[in-house]
Amino acid sequence: MYRLYDFLPSGNGYKIRLLLNALDLSYDLIEVDILKGESRTEEFLKLNANGRIPLLQLENGECLAESNAILIYLAENTPLLPEDRLDKARVLQWLFFEQYNHEPNIAVVRFWMTHGGPTEEQKAQLSAKMAGGYAALDVMEKRLTDQNWLVSDTFTVADIALYAYTHVAHEGGFDLEDYPAIRNWMERIVKRDRHVLITDH
Amino acid sequence: MYRLYDFLPSGNGYKIRLLLNALDLSYDLIEVDILKGESRTEEFLKLNANGRIPLLQLENGECLAESNAILIYLAENTPLLPEDRLDKARVLQWLFFEQYNHEPNIAVVRFWMTHGGPTEEQKAQLSAKMAGGYAALDVMEKRLTDQNWLVSDTFTVADIALYAYTHVAHEGGFDLEDYPAIRNWMERIVKRDRHVLITDH
Repeated sequence: MYRLYDFLPSGNGYKIRLLLNALDLSYDLIEVDILKGESRTEEFLKLNANGRIPLLQLENGECLAESNAILIYLAENTPLLPEDRLDKARVLQWLFFEQYNHEPNIAVVRFWMTHGGPTEEQKAQLSAKMAGGYAALDVMEKRLTDQNWLVSDTFTVADIALYAYTHVAHEGGFDLEDYPAIRNWMERIVKRDRHVLITDH
Repeated sequence: MYRLYDFLPSGNGYKIRLLLNALDLSYDLIEVDILKGESRTEEFLKLNANGRIPLLQLENGECLAESNAILIYLAENTPLLPEDRLDKARVLQWLFFEQYNHEPNIAVVRFWMTHGGPTEEQKAQLSAKMAGGYAALDVMEKRLTDQNWLVSDTFTVADIALYAYTHVAHEGGFDLEDYPAIRNWMERIVKRDRHVLITDH
């Protein structure tokens, strides 16, 4: 059985939990409290030298890090990852967009706001982070105005990856009022079979 | 023929040029001066709504963005991308690590330092960025102490992706003196056939 090292408030971890549930794959959840430094212990660093969750341990003991790499690994040969070479690359395009343009703005501001911030140092970066987050949402809105799902006409792991922090963006102060296509897309995702809520498991 | 929209000083673009050359694929280079806003024109935004280079245009006119997604697309079915499911996911693990932990620190500081910075605002973030960059280099050093290439015993696009900004890290003030495994790895890369220098093409 898979073993998932995870911190429940993490949207990056949430992606994996959503996908495991969507694929009906069972797993052991090992909670790692990153706020208490549990992802930087000598023991954990042996599993992931980068000291981060989520981390997926396979049955043979091998470990795989980086949430979006784990998504691709698990989705391979399922309907959630297209077989077509260009469509598959488009899934990756969205996953890299998520880690570079979306998460460092939207997830980071949310983390600040839900963990006693913003501090003075964070305040100095706040307007740039908010602008970056809205710019990422603009790109998504544009795409989702034209089609139901990010990559093509079917739901893929790209939708799971972008949903994770978009659906909690309001916790960082992002207002989705002007993003109707994103709001409709999130409603479509919630209505899917085997959609699991962040507090589940 | 492929068409590559690129800005020559970009390490993200350099990755693609290295790979195209390694695979002996010819392409038209369309230079886009991001400093003059050429990646944010109405015309360019039609090709990439996210307004960034590098951008690969296929023969049929379709465009693919995100440097690391382009690497995977081009490397598919070549020796530079393993076929094994876990090894392929490990390539992705390094590519996501590159975009989240390496590039936002090492490439961003390099950009500041080579473009008239650091400004007062950049100075406030500098120590965190330097620490983040060295932490990324630590993870690479650890891996490359045990083996010749990042993913396994063969050279992959993960090595190309991480090489791009590591080999110019010194331009941002990063000192690789204490990273002998990384320095040896870079020497191995430079000695490979069809390795192209950043100023080439």
